[in-house]
Amino acid sequence: MTQNIAILGASGYTGAELIRLIAGHSSMQIKALGANSKAGQSVADVFPHLRHLDLPELVTIDEIDFSQIDLCFCALPHKTSQEVISALPKDLKIVDLSADFRLRDPEAYEKWYGNKHAAVDIQEEAVYGLTEFYRKEIAAARLVAGTGCNAATGQFALRPLIAAGVIDLDDIILDLKCAVSGAGRSLKENLLHAELSEGYHAYALGSTHRHLGEFDQEFSALAGRPVQVQFTPHLVPANRGILATCYVKGDAQTIYDTLKNAYADEPFIEVLPFGEAPSTRHVRGSNFCHIGVVADRQTGRATVVVALDNLTKGSSGQALQNANLMLGLDETEGLMMAPLFP
Amino acid sequence: MTQNIAILGASGYTGAELIRLIAGHSSMQIKALGANSKAGQSVADVFPHLRHLDLPELVTIDEIDFSQIDLCFCALPHKTSQEVISALPKDLKIVDLSADFRLRDPEAYEKWYGNKHAAVDIQEEAVYGLTEFYRKEIAAARLVAGTGCNAATGQFALRPLIAAGVIDLDDIILDLKCAVSGAGRSLKENLLHAELSEGYHAYALGSTHRHLGEFDQEFSALAGRPVQVQFTPHLVPANRGILATCYVKGDAQTIYDTLKNAYADEPFIEVLPFGEAPSTRHVRGSNFCHIGVVADRQTGRATVVVALDNLTKGSSGQALQNANLMLGLDETEGLMMAPLFP
Amino acid sequence: MTQNIAILGASGYTGAELIRLIAGHSSMQIKALGANSKAGQSVADVFPHLRHLDLPELVTIDEIDFSQIDLCFCALPHKTSQEVISALPKDLKIVDLSADFRLRDPEAYEKWYGNKHAAVDIQEEAVYGLTEFYRKEIAAARLVAGTGCNAATGQFALRPLIAAGVIDLDDIILDLKCAVSGAGRSLKENLLHAELSEGYHAYALGSTHRHLGEFDQEFSALAGRPVQVQFTPHLVPANRGILATCYVKGDAQTIYDTLKNAYADEPFIEVLPFGEAPSTRHVRGSNFCHIGVVADRQTGRATVVVALDNLTKGSSGQALQNANLMLGLDETEGLMMAPLFP
Amino acid sequence: MTQNIAILGASGYTGAELIRLIAGHSSMQIKALGANSKAGQSVADVFPHLRHLDLPELVTIDEIDFSQIDLCFCALPHKTSQEVISALPKDLKIVDLSADFRLRDPEAYEKWYGNKHAAVDIQEEAVYGLTEFYRKEIAAARLVAGTGCNAATGQFALRPLIAAGVIDLDDIILDLKCAVSGAGRSLKENLLHAELSEGYHAYALGSTHRHLGEFDQEFSALAGRPVQVQFTPHLVPANRGILATCYVKGDAQTIYDTLKNAYADEPFIEVLPFGEAPSTRHVRGSNFCHIGVVADRQTGRATVVVALDNLTKGSSGQALQNANLMLGLDETEGLMMAPLFP
Repeated sequence: MTQNIAILGASGYTGAELIRLIAGHSSMQIKALGANSKAGQSVADVFPHLRHLDLPELVTIDEIDFSQIDLCFCALPHKTSQEVISALPKDLKIVDLSADFRLRDPEAYEKWYGNKHAAVDIQEEAVYGLTEFYRKEIAAARLVAGTGCNAATGQFALRPLIAAGVIDLDDIILDLKCAVSGAGRSLKENLLHAELSEGYHAYALGSTHRHLGEFDQEFSALAGRPVQVQFTPHLVPANRGILATCYVKGDAQTIYDTLKNAYADEPFIEVLPFGEAPSTRHVRGSNFCHIGVVADRQTGRATVVVALDNLTKGSSGQALQNANLMLGLDETEGLMMAPLFP
Repeated sequence: MTQNIAILGASGYTGAELIRLIAGHSSMQIKALGANSKAGQSVADVFPHLRHLDLPELVTIDEIDFSQIDLCFCALPHKTSQEVISALPKDLKIVDLSADFRLRDPEAYEKWYGNKHAAVDIQEEAVYGLTEFYRKEIAAARLVAGTGCNAATGQFALRPLIAAGVIDLDDIILDLKCAVSGAGRSLKENLLHAELSEGYHAYALGSTHRHLGEFDQEFSALAGRPVQVQFTPHLVPANRGILATCYVKGDAQTIYDTLKNAYADEPFIEVLPFGEAPSTRHVRGSNFCHIGVVADRQTGRATVVVALDNLTKGSSGQALQNANLMLGLDETEGLMMAPLFP
Repeated sequence: MTQNIAILGASGYTGAELIRLIAGHSSMQIKALGANSKAGQSVADVFPHLRHLDLPELVTIDEIDFSQIDLCFCALPHKTSQEVISALPKDLKIVDLSADFRLRDPEAYEKWYGNKHAAVDIQEEAVYGLTEFYRKEIAAARLVAGTGCNAATGQFALRPLIAAGVIDLDDIILDLKCAVSGAGRSLKENLLHAELSEGYHAYALGSTHRHLGEFDQEFSALAGRPVQVQFTPHLVPANRGILATCYVKGDAQTIYDTLKNAYADEPFIEVLPFGEAPSTRHVRGSNFCHIGVVADRQTGRATVVVALDNLTKGSSGQALQNANLMLGLDETEGLMMAPLFP
Repeated sequence: MTQNIAILGASGYTGAELIRLIAGHSSMQIKALGANSKAGQSVADVFPHLRHLDLPELVTIDEIDFSQIDLCFCALPHKTSQEVISALPKDLKIVDLSADFRLRDPEAYEKWYGNKHAAVDIQEEAVYGLTEFYRKEIAAARLVAGTGCNAATGQFALRPLIAAGVIDLDDIILDLKCAVSGAGRSLKENLLHAELSEGYHAYALGSTHRHLGEFDQEFSALAGRPVQVQFTPHLVPANRGILATCYVKGDAQTIYDTLKNAYADEPFIEVLPFGEAPSTRHVRGSNFCHIGVVADRQTGRATVVVALDNLTKGSSGQALQNANLMLGLDETEGLMMAPLFP
């Protein structure tokens, strides 16, 4: 049975990535593509790399007949997303890729995002979309809130360790390096090729990045007490990829065993042999996540390194994985393509 | 029915690309991976991006039992390839990705490659592997010689024009820009990141590039008279992609119509609307080839621009397309994945 | 004696490059930096790489007291430039980096730039700023019009050949590859790192690029008859550099000798040994221009390849070279730094 | 008075960088260029970007008449360097850029580099070349041992803090991102453009990188007790630049004030305003080092970020700075060029 799909915000990078993935999905069909600012254009105009596909034109969201849609992906900016989703049919299955429904506490949302949440009632039914840890809830959910791409990366490293109590909760450092597509297609000086290429820098220093809202929420819930990581993201001159280097205190072998066991049956999470570390180039364009654990020369300290593709496992791939669960399909359908290297 | 596949030269980039593509193929299974210099290693050691796949270890070519193999890809360097293929079973279906069987005339081979051809008898049964133009012969062939990646690119632009007689045969200029993966995984100073990044240059100037042997052979055969193009390749700081800018004399609209008609039914060749030009970023990682035609301000002159991914449509994708034909499978099987952008 | 310098448009890339170069100049001092959109900010705010320099704050152009200025660089967008220069003191020495005063014929200007020229009287006194060919006129000029960066590149290859009558004037093809800083700091989707990196494409196809106005003007004047080159620029994923591959008809050795002689005494133009070709990576950050000539396998055809840094020799370095002449200084002052490689 | 300079190991990147810098030095002249593997070639052959310079040919080290040399730079691989320097005149002033004389304890050398030190007597007279902290000793030295580029970067952040006792000595994490030219011009698969571009990874994990020998030596000496930092370097797809993100425990404002005061009079070290962080793109090609301090949301924790160009301030620029001191010249001579951006 073919599932009819709508994508709102189809002219951004996560929208394009959803189209790319769904094009290879055996039982989904794209019925509507919403992109208010580019309505009336064809996908080939906006994304020439998708010109071989037979797709509907971009339309305004108002023009979409949602009664024909089985599941809707929202790849809109935060704040816009909650407004748009509030107006959608209340029984429509939705995977939201924005930040709007990730934080269960509306005050936390306001603190990190600066605006009052305008759809608190809908927030209440949202399930946090980190598939590997909320699989059952996602399968039963109407609305799934896709995680931040940095937030997903850090959690893949740390959740099993916090849950198992094998690391010091008060000394977690997360040094993250992300590629530029994570910043989206917005026109900012610091995203220009001439500004970014051949240079790299830290941003959102002092643990001020919005994805900390997710870390705080999830890690504190797991630990049963407040946990605050120290987090610095860096922008590096590449298009896809997040590499997180986590400095933790605990026994390296125990940390390794905990992660190895936690992900033993996961189709997308690869824990490398002890002592090896991953590279973003080995997950590019795929839904895989590679994790490595290395002991430090100082006993009691370890480094956990995680790599994934921010547009795939970090957002659109995760979104499709969740949609598969929500529609009762095989979770891996459309997502098993190998990474693109070189 | 599952087709058993062997890949010789599995530790190079075209070998890795073959594995990537076949991993998504519904009826092929990789039974043997030959790589003499890395025999004994696992694919995960050599190509960590393929670590999620269940694949045989790398072995020496001698260790492979070819009686179990339905089709063998040879992704070996030229000269080595003719030696290896000479020793393979004479009824084994083979797609060769090297230069060894592309030139029908052994003297032309010797002229362009510098060594005497050591397998002239096998050369005689080889079919030139430009799928769109040798489809029938390929389907019936035992040995298909994959084209040079630059040679494929130029031919997609020019073959229909030469065949139709709509351009001046004595004034064809082919300015080609190719990404670095085309040079393979060999250790040369000019392939180092520090040498290549942030700079670009022409090489093999004066129409001395080996792929001219293919242009000369194919274009002269089509025209029924000698045709010599003027050809300059350039190396640009990117990993995948070939962009060929062809300067031709003829009526632009006629040129456009000729190409549009020639490729009307081709699943992988997209002729853009008249006046538009392609970009390598829109074909990356895919088997698609985009072609654009633009009229010059001087009447009677036109520019034809072609873009494809050298590792996919330019070599391993083409090879799989040919293998599909040789095995009686759907030609597009395993090859319809959308390009990776950004 | 110290020369007091003003730079208008100091917040763009050519403005920054002027500051970088003048910082190493022995007898120039920057007295005023105009940048209307960023007035009130420090140079360190806008260009952190210049934070070690002791420079005046950015101000609006209106705030500058030009009576203290010996020479003013205008690095403003075209159209703005003619308006601003019209309002400057009539005896102020000016080097304009925009397109506004390059074309002697106001109708040609209107044809290529789309707007009527608003300062035709000032245009009449402007000298075309290709230093190596207008040295005497530049030394005596009040207003020098810096050339287009692509226009400079092509002219370095072709002017001596057209002047000497050693190439066919009706068959000149100029295939040019330029880096992204040539497009300036403007916020456009196609200049984003995610769009540009790892891909390349042709633009302004069909010989429609504005710099053709300069080629037409200069080449026709040299030849004493209309000359129209066929010109295709390409954008490649690099920040600095222009590489022009010129396909010409003529005797390769004669072409080489003509260029070698023409530039024998030039401090910044290096003609490589016959048969070698330049690379942009070998001129980056410098005022040098490298030229190579290669014979084609078809006699009577040759390829001339030129490389320079668009921001230095192509614009701000050229501008400083011209300013040195206008102020009676050594032409090479502040410009002899070696290229940055790797 | 002109100082006669020899450079041994002139065909590597640090050798080329030395030539670039010395070309702009007012009182140094390059008299001899040693490069055994490329002896007999011209600099233009090996480094076309330096072709405009009038330089001696490359020769074997044996061919150099050191009696004419005032100062010799050794840019040779470690181990080779100690052998070569042992054979040089005992009164020749030498700046060594290798690792051979950095570690005062021969056992530490053997531990980190794997071979026994073969010139322990010469080691004894060597001065550690971190200019800002060994200025007086360097001015009086015959042999100066240039620091590791990573080691320099980390020390600029941490030395004043350790000396002042304002951070916890047992919890220092140094997450470092370096560009590829730091690995030199050696032919390794992981330095190929196709392997490195568009991807990044950690290496030498578990605090096993050789530059830790320098950190251990210097930090422990400063603290008067053993200090071991936790150090992870990462390779990012860029050619020049090191960015170190240091996670320390201490009062952020005190940390800032300590650094600000320590570097108040330094010509090359720029401490940014409190709360700002540097970028490698803003120091590229220059001898400047930018340092930023940011308070974490958790009180008592801070992040110190340092950026410099590994080939300039991290090696060849540092070497020239030291040579200036050793020759009684102005320390900044030949080193004040502004960074190249974009």
